Amino acid sequence: MNIVQPAPASLSPELIARFRAIVGDKYGVTDAAEIAPYVTEERNLYVGHSPLVLRPGSTDEVVAICKLATETRTALVPQGGNTGLVGGQTPHHGEVVLSLRRMDKIRDVDTQSNTMTVEAGAVLQTLQQRASDVDRLFPLSLGAEGSCTIGGNLSTNAGGTGALAYGVARAMALGLEVVLADGRVLNTLSKLKKDNTGYNLHNLFIGAEGTLGVITAATLKLFPKPRGVATAFVGLTSAEAALKLLEISQNEAAGSLTSFELLAEICVDFCVKHGPAIRDPLAQRYPWYVLMEVSSSRDDARATLEAILERGVEHGIVDDAVIAENLTQRTAFWKLREVISPAQKPEGGSIKHDVSVPVAAVPAFIEAANAAVVKLIPGSRPVPFGHLGDGNIHYNVSQPVGGSKEEFLARWHEVNAVVFDIVLKMGGSISAEHGIGVMKRDELPEVKDKVAIEVMRGIKALLDPLNIMNPGKVL
Amino acid sequence: MNIVQPAPASLSPELIARFRAIVGDKYGVTDAAEIAPYVTEERNLYVGHSPLVLRPGSTDEVVAICKLATETRTALVPQGGNTGLVGGQTPHHGEVVLSLRRMDKIRDVDTQSNTMTVEAGAVLQTLQQRASDVDRLFPLSLGAEGSCTIGGNLSTNAGGTGALAYGVARAMALGLEVVLADGRVLNTLSKLKKDNTGYNLHNLFIGAEGTLGVITAATLKLFPKPRGVATAFVGLTSAEAALKLLEISQNEAAGSLTSFELLAEICVDFCVKHGPAIRDPLAQRYPWYVLMEVSSSRDDARATLEAILERGVEHGIVDDAVIAENLTQRTAFWKLREVISPAQKPEGGSIKHDVSVPVAAVPAFIEAANAAVVKLIPGSRPVPFGHLGDGNIHYNVSQPVGGSKEEFLARWHEVNAVVFDIVLKMGGSISAEHGIGVMKRDELPEVKDKVAIEVMRGIKALLDPLNIMNPGKVL
Repeated sequence: MNIVQPAPASLSPELIARFRAIVGDKYGVTDAAEIAPYVTEERNLYVGHSPLVLRPGSTDEVVAICKLATETRTALVPQGGNTGLVGGQTPHHGEVVLSLRRMDKIRDVDTQSNTMTVEAGAVLQTLQQRASDVDRLFPLSLGAEGSCTIGGNLSTNAGGTGALAYGVARAMALGLEVVLADGRVLNTLSKLKKDNTGYNLHNLFIGAEGTLGVITAATLKLFPKPRGVATAFVGLTSAEAALKLLEISQNEAAGSLTSFELLAEICVDFCVKHGPAIRDPLAQRYPWYVLMEVSSSRDDARATLEAILERGVEHGIVDDAVIAENLTQRTAFWKLREVISPAQKPEGGSIKHDVSVPVAAVPAFIEAANAAVVKLIPGSRPVPFGHLGDGNIHYNVSQPVGGSKEEFLARWHEVNAVVFDIVLKMGGSISAEHGIGVMKRDELPEVKDKVAIEVMRGIKALLDPLNIMNPGKVL
Repeated sequence: MNIVQPAPASLSPELIARFRAIVGDKYGVTDAAEIAPYVTEERNLYVGHSPLVLRPGSTDEVVAICKLATETRTALVPQGGNTGLVGGQTPHHGEVVLSLRRMDKIRDVDTQSNTMTVEAGAVLQTLQQRASDVDRLFPLSLGAEGSCTIGGNLSTNAGGTGALAYGVARAMALGLEVVLADGRVLNTLSKLKKDNTGYNLHNLFIGAEGTLGVITAATLKLFPKPRGVATAFVGLTSAEAALKLLEISQNEAAGSLTSFELLAEICVDFCVKHGPAIRDPLAQRYPWYVLMEVSSSRDDARATLEAILERGVEHGIVDDAVIAENLTQRTAFWKLREVISPAQKPEGGSIKHDVSVPVAAVPAFIEAANAAVVKLIPGSRPVPFGHLGDGNIHYNVSQPVGGSKEEFLARWHEVNAVVFDIVLKMGGSISAEHGIGVMKRDELPEVKDKVAIEVMRGIKALLDPLNIMNPGKVL
């Protein structure tokens, strides 16, 4: 199955005019300064270029754009909030950017069916707020929520901190509206919890990073809004103890356990040292920490959390713990968790991994990866943290103290290789939540089931035979 | 996109011998009496025929069977426990039956990762028990659980009574092992909660009813086992009141609300009249009933349930309610729910529907369908019941008292037509949990998004170009 190469990136003035006529000149951006924010991302890790950014205001306009793109074999890069971390939303080869941000309507909110039908360009935080306004929860939550869009969240199958109890973005979508490469509209929008009429198609587009079609709208699930939340910061001796505490917590709280984040001691070191007004929540330092949260629709969140911690103390796995007494304290705990990555910056270069392994394997993974990385680069400092309940570790490595940042970062792929090798031996994934984009595209065929790659290529050729949808990404 | 017709069903003795050689003669069944249970289903609604039932004992044997089937263009009908309700597992045209029941190993149970990797032929009840043995819950639960297999459950995306809190079968699978039509093995088995490496493929096979490949194994999610369950039988004046009670219940109990079943008065009438030792749980009859259950990992199930019912009384929507005081009483409540369908039999013919609408639309759907059905066949008696929390109603219609059963059942398609028409106008589904099979195959193109049908045909042609996998089903 060969995938046709995309057309060359130079667009004639006539073709640019035809595209602009679809959205109106105001929303067919050709000015280089106005284009810049669409072709670069905030870390400046990926810088693309494009002659044209199209900002359609309706599904019909997206249809017209895709039809013209098919007719003229023009490559398109669909884009939401431009917050992706793997270069998936960047026009690396001068493709036309198809920005969905103007399509941000909330088409329907149904509190009895617990659904919300929204357009792709709606900002995640806006959707969280809208759900809250009608006494519901939309639980997808991640660092970029103030600017990322739901279309991008679904295209990349975003994870975040709510995944433990509510699942990843995929688990929150009941159906999609997708414009296919040739302009056909696939409509699986649906408020139905159960529908067994034929093949499940919408899950193909979730996590496809815009390579199979353009998500223009989605029906999302809403959840009951928790009435009470209790948050604890816990000190432990080992990652194994954290794993045991997770099991106790799940048995005690079940679906009410809404967060369970693991942090190595060095994370707290860096945060206290470099973070803005970050204090260590505990009186002394511990080798490992857990930031955990119980949410309940009744008034028992704190009692449940206390019961968990008591059992943890009984089992000798909880060394110290503090429960947030108020919102300020809770915010402070989360702030610490959120500034780990920025707090690495003053420590020099950092080589990052977004990996997952079976939950049971997390302690063994961290131990093996630490040993391998330090052997490869003596003095390098592993900074592991992440969503233990999901088996998802952001396995970052800070450079040796006083070493050269450039020399360290030049070994990015070597470090990747030893870490990925351990991940794969444990049945893990080299991309837990950020996706493939261009960053991991070349590794994918090496780590993925061979038949899976073949089927993926077949589906790509079926839905996008001219390879105009985000070409060069994922596959 | 044309789908090649399957080869004629007559198999040469040589070909039968080649197939039997793969599994061994003992497991290559050719005796008509031994074949009979595989080609008929328990209601005798669908009776097929086949010259050969293959009972492989390993994935390798399934691979060899599919390769030979591809080489010789022999049509296969994959089959689990043969409990499907839409004729999907029946060889209607003399196809070879591929029974997965011998492949029933539990390959791995991981209580820390909360996963279980099992072969397709494992019986659902066995898996529930195995999970329970390690202090976990496998929440898929349905009437046929004593004989249906997990491969069949996944192929049909089974629903059942646990779907409200835990989702349908699809939500419980982390990955699959699938043998494709040409014998390639697609392996997405995985214990990972998060994995964003490429297109989501396993969801294509879940709910595909064996038309895209043979599911041979799955990695399933396990859940914390609830410690306490509280069950109530509630009398109400209207379906709207039941809907309001659902909203109160979800806000109060969130994920602890594990069942919310709606029953019309006539269901209780029939059960009390015809069911084995069924008593009306309440002192007097009400127009509507709710059977609801709260499950909790703490000791608060009953308190939560009482709080819900109190709020229901405050709002004037709960007329009467009884909470099960012990397991016997709880079992009696559920028994009543389970015998509704059998209790219809002494009342004559019944025309059945397994439909879903948005949860908010359930009362309006029932009202409109009742009116339309009684208008079409005066004296016919609608018997609506089902999973209100999922918007999934088993909308059965019993024949008029004293009328002819044959005459009534002869109007099956007419009744379907008026019911489906209302379902579709409300954005519902004509098959909520039973699937398409052959029963609803001809309706599918009329009710489904046209582009969805096109994409389904494309995927079918991609994965099964010779149309040997369960031909004539779904599409």
